Amino acid sequence: MDSSLLRILLEDLQKGELDIDSALRKLKTLPFEDLGYARIDSHRCLRTGVSEVVLCAGKTIEQIVGIAQRIAQNHRNILLTRASKEVFTAVEAAIDSCQYHATARIIVVNPTRLNRLGKIAVVSAGTSDMPVAEEAAVTAETLGSDVDRFYDVGVAGIHRLLHVCDDLMKANAAVVAAGMEGALASVVGGLVACPVIGVPTSVGYGASFGGLAALLGMLNSCAPGVSVVNIDNGFGAGYQAHLINKAVCCASS
Amino acid sequence: MDSSLLRILLEDLQKGELDIDSALRKLKTLPFEDLGYARIDSHRCLRTGVSEVVLCAGKTIEQIVGIAQRIAQNHRNILLTRASKEVFTAVEAAIDSCQYHATARIIVVNPTRLNRLGKIAVVSAGTSDMPVAEEAAVTAETLGSDVDRFYDVGVAGIHRLLHVCDDLMKANAAVVAAGMEGALASVVGGLVACPVIGVPTSVGYGASFGGLAALLGMLNSCAPGVSVVNIDNGFGAGYQAHLINKAVCCASS
Amino acid sequence: MDSSLLRILLEDLQKGELDIDSALRKLKTLPFEDLGYARIDSHRCLRTGVSEVVLCAGKTIEQIVGIAQRIAQNHRNILLTRASKEVFTAVEAAIDSCQYHATARIIVVNPTRLNRLGKIAVVSAGTSDMPVAEEAAVTAETLGSDVDRFYDVGVAGIHRLLHVCDDLMKANAAVVAAGMEGALASVVGGLVACPVIGVPTSVGYGASFGGLAALLGMLNSCAPGVSVVNIDNGFGAGYQAHLINKAVCCASS
Amino acid sequence: MDSSLLRILLEDLQKGELDIDSALRKLKTLPFEDLGYARIDSHRCLRTGVSEVVLCAGKTIEQIVGIAQRIAQNHRNILLTRASKEVFTAVEAAIDSCQYHATARIIVVNPTRLNRLGKIAVVSAGTSDMPVAEEAAVTAETLGSDVDRFYDVGVAGIHRLLHVCDDLMKANAAVVAAGMEGALASVVGGLVACPVIGVPTSVGYGASFGGLAALLGMLNSCAPGVSVVNIDNGFGAGYQAHLINKAVCCASS
Amino acid sequence: MDSSLLRILLEDLQKGELDIDSALRKLKTLPFEDLGYARIDSHRCLRTGVSEVVLCAGKTIEQIVGIAQRIAQNHRNILLTRASKEVFTAVEAAIDSCQYHATARIIVVNPTRLNRLGKIAVVSAGTSDMPVAEEAAVTAETLGSDVDRFYDVGVAGIHRLLHVCDDLMKANAAVVAAGMEGALASVVGGLVACPVIGVPTSVGYGASFGGLAALLGMLNSCAPGVSVVNIDNGFGAGYQAHLINKAVCCASS
Amino acid sequence: MDSSLLRILLEDLQKGELDIDSALRKLKTLPFEDLGYARIDSHRCLRTGVSEVVLCAGKTIEQIVGIAQRIAQNHRNILLTRASKEVFTAVEAAIDSCQYHATARIIVVNPTRLNRLGKIAVVSAGTSDMPVAEEAAVTAETLGSDVDRFYDVGVAGIHRLLHVCDDLMKANAAVVAAGMEGALASVVGGLVACPVIGVPTSVGYGASFGGLAALLGMLNSCAPGVSVVNIDNGFGAGYQAHLINKAVCCASS
Amino acid sequence: MDSSLLRILLEDLQKGELDIDSALRKLKTLPFEDLGYARIDSHRCLRTGVSEVVLCAGKTIEQIVGIAQRIAQNHRNILLTRASKEVFTAVEAAIDSCQYHATARIIVVNPTRLNRLGKIAVVSAGTSDMPVAEEAAVTAETLGSDVDRFYDVGVAGIHRLLHVCDDLMKANAAVVAAGMEGALASVVGGLVACPVIGVPTSVGYGASFGGLAALLGMLNSCAPGVSVVNIDNGFGAGYQAHLINKAVCCASS
Amino acid sequence: MDSSLLRILLEDLQKGELDIDSALRKLKTLPFEDLGYARIDSHRCLRTGVSEVVLCAGKTIEQIVGIAQRIAQNHRNILLTRASKEVFTAVEAAIDSCQYHATARIIVVNPTRLNRLGKIAVVSAGTSDMPVAEEAAVTAETLGSDVDRFYDVGVAGIHRLLHVCDDLMKANAAVVAAGMEGALASVVGGLVACPVIGVPTSVGYGASFGGLAALLGMLNSCAPGVSVVNIDNGFGAGYQAHLINKAVCCASS
Repeated sequence: MDSSLLRILLEDLQKGELDIDSALRKLKTLPFEDLGYARIDSHRCLRTGVSEVVLCAGKTIEQIVGIAQRIAQNHRNILLTRASKEVFTAVEAAIDSCQYHATARIIVVNPTRLNRLGKIAVVSAGTSDMPVAEEAAVTAETLGSDVDRFYDVGVAGIHRLLHVCDDLMKANAAVVAAGMEGALASVVGGLVACPVIGVPTSVGYGASFGGLAALLGMLNSCAPGVSVVNIDNGFGAGYQAHLINKAVCCASS
Repeated sequence: MDSSLLRILLEDLQKGELDIDSALRKLKTLPFEDLGYARIDSHRCLRTGVSEVVLCAGKTIEQIVGIAQRIAQNHRNILLTRASKEVFTAVEAAIDSCQYHATARIIVVNPTRLNRLGKIAVVSAGTSDMPVAEEAAVTAETLGSDVDRFYDVGVAGIHRLLHVCDDLMKANAAVVAAGMEGALASVVGGLVACPVIGVPTSVGYGASFGGLAALLGMLNSCAPGVSVVNIDNGFGAGYQAHLINKAVCCASS
Repeated sequence: MDSSLLRILLEDLQKGELDIDSALRKLKTLPFEDLGYARIDSHRCLRTGVSEVVLCAGKTIEQIVGIAQRIAQNHRNILLTRASKEVFTAVEAAIDSCQYHATARIIVVNPTRLNRLGKIAVVSAGTSDMPVAEEAAVTAETLGSDVDRFYDVGVAGIHRLLHVCDDLMKANAAVVAAGMEGALASVVGGLVACPVIGVPTSVGYGASFGGLAALLGMLNSCAPGVSVVNIDNGFGAGYQAHLINKAVCCASS
Repeated sequence: MDSSLLRILLEDLQKGELDIDSALRKLKTLPFEDLGYARIDSHRCLRTGVSEVVLCAGKTIEQIVGIAQRIAQNHRNILLTRASKEVFTAVEAAIDSCQYHATARIIVVNPTRLNRLGKIAVVSAGTSDMPVAEEAAVTAETLGSDVDRFYDVGVAGIHRLLHVCDDLMKANAAVVAAGMEGALASVVGGLVACPVIGVPTSVGYGASFGGLAALLGMLNSCAPGVSVVNIDNGFGAGYQAHLINKAVCCASS
Repeated sequence: MDSSLLRILLEDLQKGELDIDSALRKLKTLPFEDLGYARIDSHRCLRTGVSEVVLCAGKTIEQIVGIAQRIAQNHRNILLTRASKEVFTAVEAAIDSCQYHATARIIVVNPTRLNRLGKIAVVSAGTSDMPVAEEAAVTAETLGSDVDRFYDVGVAGIHRLLHVCDDLMKANAAVVAAGMEGALASVVGGLVACPVIGVPTSVGYGASFGGLAALLGMLNSCAPGVSVVNIDNGFGAGYQAHLINKAVCCASS
Repeated sequence: MDSSLLRILLEDLQKGELDIDSALRKLKTLPFEDLGYARIDSHRCLRTGVSEVVLCAGKTIEQIVGIAQRIAQNHRNILLTRASKEVFTAVEAAIDSCQYHATARIIVVNPTRLNRLGKIAVVSAGTSDMPVAEEAAVTAETLGSDVDRFYDVGVAGIHRLLHVCDDLMKANAAVVAAGMEGALASVVGGLVACPVIGVPTSVGYGASFGGLAALLGMLNSCAPGVSVVNIDNGFGAGYQAHLINKAVCCASS
Repeated sequence: MDSSLLRILLEDLQKGELDIDSALRKLKTLPFEDLGYARIDSHRCLRTGVSEVVLCAGKTIEQIVGIAQRIAQNHRNILLTRASKEVFTAVEAAIDSCQYHATARIIVVNPTRLNRLGKIAVVSAGTSDMPVAEEAAVTAETLGSDVDRFYDVGVAGIHRLLHVCDDLMKANAAVVAAGMEGALASVVGGLVACPVIGVPTSVGYGASFGGLAALLGMLNSCAPGVSVVNIDNGFGAGYQAHLINKAVCCASS
Repeated sequence: MDSSLLRILLEDLQKGELDIDSALRKLKTLPFEDLGYARIDSHRCLRTGVSEVVLCAGKTIEQIVGIAQRIAQNHRNILLTRASKEVFTAVEAAIDSCQYHATARIIVVNPTRLNRLGKIAVVSAGTSDMPVAEEAAVTAETLGSDVDRFYDVGVAGIHRLLHVCDDLMKANAAVVAAGMEGALASVVGGLVACPVIGVPTSVGYGASFGGLAALLGMLNSCAPGVSVVNIDNGFGAGYQAHLINKAVCCASS
């Protein structure tokens, strides 16, 4: 709860500019809005600097459109993740301004190009990891970070990674998307000095167990400086990397 | 590989100040040292800004002492993690300057108090999570970050957490150590704007399966901005938080 | 076995009003009915106060209709759970009086509105948890409990939950449906004084492993007063909550 | 937060009987106490009717004694669970009034016999399940519920269970502790009308996987009215059963 | 290898009625037939008394038909298990004499009604377990055992099982098919004196994990005399029960 | 319940030789005895032909001795399984007649040598599987079956198994104890015509996961006629094999 | 990095035939080619003797065709694995010379028949394992090894395997593909003297858990000389077997 | 079975130099020796070129000594793996000639130094992996292969590995022992042309789950040419590598 707002409210009450019942109501009317099937957390933007993000998977198209319309009234650059083509068609029909990143499966509502600051490296092990890597990259870019992409640099041909090593080292944060054994996160973690966010992907078969192998691999990374998000959670990795990059940029400006 | 050093080497060769065999040897003599049972990565400090850290678990006392002595010749504030009392006794006997953090199970060899910069919040759910939380806190402090500790603020009594919320929000990075269901990481992740590093602990019994429940809980956090390290890996969490904090501090200075 | 009925039977036998073979037959003719593919447990209503509930998943449409028709002869408010639209069409064609709750995927055969007594809170973490939450709510309502719904109050924006805290506290029992990390059950369990029934949902992806993460999270809840049912088992949670609520209401009347 | 207290505070402020800084401080001074390694949630008793319970496993003896001493100043019938004989010796030395239930591994500090109300049935499958069953029984009794014990009535000799069926049916809530396949919870759930709290135990070997088999068995119970707590969590089961029993008793009085 | 056949072969060689190369070839020409994609084990019938059984799942329709045609030349009552309707259509088109058991998903090629001897009880917990139970029953009947079916007698209404207890006790072997928690195997195992073959089914959802809960439950049965086959392996259970029943019948004749 | 006993009871009641209260009591006084911590199922012997077996693991020595003493009053050849040397010392001190099989970890109380009938083959893969194999063998022998042991015939040297194949084929039932990959059960299952009871052992390391690999291997046996008991459950395998062997012998006599 | 090339480069630099910037660029221009979505590792062929292999699963058809076209410019016998019929149609339309192995799901681009050297045995347990076995066989043949196929020789009829034992023993390496319990790898490993590569297949159901049972079985093989690749990874097994076979052949020539 | 021996036997029979009963006996007297608790497979040496290896774990000291003594009569360089110091003391007391490799936990009975041929690289990720790596190295050396050790070259400091790359490439086979995430196997697999045998170690904690993470990582290696043995199975890896190395050396000689 915002301490200064609370102080103003209490001062108003003290000065008699606010009666008790209004104060009680205000103290309870926290900033969210109830659509019945969803409570839109409009407070989040104040709290964390990013407006609410909508995970489309598991919601009906009607719910997605309804939530998006409501957030769109007050915010820009709203992220709708895991959005299929079909979802985009419905959102596009209902909302004037929106943009679809097909590989990343992200819709941006009210897209507004921000100054892209700092530098985030998004690294992927193989071609099949691209949807997850792009989810991270588009998320970070939409939130205002500059992103360099290094795709298909998996450890089976380590010279490909060493080749881009100097460029990698310029980033304030690195996202590493890898399936199968997920070894790339450890190798990158051993090469760079910035925080590495590993995002295991479900790419693989058999004993990859839907990304479990890559997840365990990254969690057990022998290189320090590697933390991990959920399997295929490109959004989460891009978001975390953006938080770090933004903090560095804000501090330096 | 350091591009500028390579340029100098090549220039020396061109100028005739270096013969080919010496150049070849130098290109191959990468900076590490082979003790037989360990290759000390003295290059790491240049690469990542932190000297090699020794995980004591799984090594013999002889190996630990040997490695520590060798690193101690050139570095200070060397971290020996998962060090039992018995290990400390042996290290203390062999090395003049070292310090033991018993709860954190960390030995610092050649301890030198650095200016502690910025602010990291280390949050723990319960009293039993303290060893892991302390491992994170001591790691970050030894590397040069300032740390605030918020212990025993688990979600079963959420007012304890809300009470410290304003202080939490001052941190550049937060470490959340929690066992059992690990829900604290999500709740903190929803409250603060900085990156949160969740470290699931093995505290619990039965269906906690040695920390698996907390690990899965944190990986599935519904709050964005949470990334996760291995179960009980307080060191990794403190290290990652320090990287973030240091980057912010360096940028602002 | 009902002790008083047994006594009457034995007395009739003693008085000669019943011959031995009839007594034997009666002792064996326990109250169920064999349809070949199903034995309808008409005794359950006497034993537990609720007539047999039909889980549609895994049964053929013919079996569902046959079982429903037979129970419908003697009971009302019969619950058919996990019923698809297709199942409803078939049941509706065969049975005059039935009602479909689409989100809850429940058919009520011979629906009869009971006085809804007491108060059960059904709480859900996100919009995607609604089918499970509704299964719990409709089950409890059909069995005769009054239900308040609190949807989309997940821990990533904890103020949404705190906002409804006073209303939550009025319930005799609370059902908490949450996927992903399932942390909501612990937080609610720490806030209310009534029993909490956690129902983990399969909402999530990757390391949610089909609801396993939420299940383990709830089982390891650091708040006492939380018990758990199977993943997605909204029916079981609503049923258990109704048992508690009904016992309180009956005791107080 | 207590709405009426908030109103009084606001009224005092309005009347000038409280200045703003005091109001702010009061709004923040939530009722808990910080021992450094633990924050004692003295508010819990107001919130849930039960004072904080101490899980000894994972804490040092010094921490246990410290926490117990502090709670003991204001509360009675404080439960210290998973307490070894060694812990009891230390607690006994530090606190005048305490009592040890050896099989249940529970210490009660400031024990005060309450009127034991209502009826809870604690049922166990085998002799080896007794420690868990006793943990549930002693918890419920200490909190003020009357308990009937039905031990060693596992399903391999189902007549033993049927024999006590009439007595079982008198309970307001039943706790069923069973290891191995945990089938007893389902069978009891099918026989009684009250809520059943299943507590899987780690009794067994091989493919019991430390209680996993019993846990999964109880979660998949084909009888409705069964909810489940963590493996070996007798405390949680006894607590939940007490909440239900108390609600029924309070309502009826 | 058949010792008497070997003796005859050696005698023939000794007598000069067989030359060495023929003897060598005969020693190597073991009784199976190579179709390229399958080696038909025509020796099995001699070895185990049952001709080779064809598991259709995982084979192409062409392979199934080819194998069935070849075995059909020399055997009757050939079992083709896990056969879809589509497989039956193809087999029926290619082979004159075959019969389809739709619920059991079994095709019998060259069906010949044997005298059905002894008695096997096939017990199932719920209506949804019928396909697996029927697979067991049809297997045992086709191999020559008499089968009594007891369906939908799950433990949630234990009186249904007790009602048929006398009939159950007449069997030489019992098959118990149950999903969810699989408790029925333990209860039946505690009631009867004959061997019980438990077959866990994949009926259930959530934490049944595709039959894992029932499998673990049956393996941990607290009743002795229960052994277990693979999830949904009705064939294996019926086969094992038939072996037992046949041995008893043969011994008694 | 025994139908003929029930008829006699009812006839007595009808004739006036029994009053109603006695009849009610008799109907309830099922044959077991309550020791407080254990209910001895003396009915089991009537029901299944084997007196209750005591699993020592998980019971205190006092409980074991108490239970053994009570059963010993009425039965002979009582099996106490998983009995350590220490347990034997205590039992021996309390009960006159008992015998210890050290490798099998079985105590037989009131040992009486029965005519050993029929033939059971107990086969083990390696030397380390002997304790489990012996548990099976001693169980079957104590219950009255004749046992042939075939130890250390694992599939890595398949000629060792083929060598004993003719002897194996004489058994009415075979127990196969194997750890590691448990392949022996499939190979034996393909060679013999009698039922095979596989007992996976926890022998192995790493990815044997305490016997899980052998368990899964046996459950997925490609040979029909193999059923499986819990990991290390030699008792259960020997018991099941004895049931089969006894049925065959009884039928033939 | 190739030491001799490095020497030449340095000599050129020393001689002045190369300027520093060119040397730097050359040192960085490692041999791969960036298509944006893929970096083709043309260096691999020099390094390992086999050109890059394309795993089609997880890639779009456009990506597969693009990668294949690029590699096809410089290489022959390029393997495209896990290629569906649909992928083949697209590749065939874009590239002149390619060949489809339908059962193995492999496309060979620029197929050129090499001298097939040495001998690899590819052994499979059942008909359903053929796709995986063929993937191994076609891989090894395309790379230049001679392959003998031994299909459907599973352990349930061990004489089928013993029959081909002499032929098996001629191989320099053996691939064993088996699903279900995967026992065949151990049995073959015990019979032959050459290295055995086990490839567990996902053939099976229930407790095969998608090949996990076979995988664990093979990893725990009691026969030495068995190593294992991922579930269904016929390519990996064939590749490894080819490496061994080629090394033997090269050494002998 | 050896075809030529069989021919001689049959010829002797034909010539009358052998009677039928002797022939039968010889055909059955396969070469192994039965110690009661173990059947020594003396045939293995003929079959696979290596005498039987004794895994000490799980055997009693008496059994180990007995087996070792018996094999020692006819063989040299007998490997006793997983031998503790205590086992060595007992073996040394009973057998004249034996040698202990403490780190590798291997006893060699009748050690005889063979010409060490070819070249195997044994690579380990960290100091803690040394016991497993040494088990592989000593096994291969004892069997007659020349071994180069590359220890502590894990991927967190990839330059350490690149430094030894040229030496690695000289091997005919490489063993890679790594715990934690096991990424080293993939990186080595991408660098060398020879077969790589990965041996995951149990080094690690938390989500390494006893080596599971490393095991899954290696099985999912994105580099072809990597096969895997059981967790901590240094023996198996060394054995497999020796088979490959020996085949290459034999072929070339």
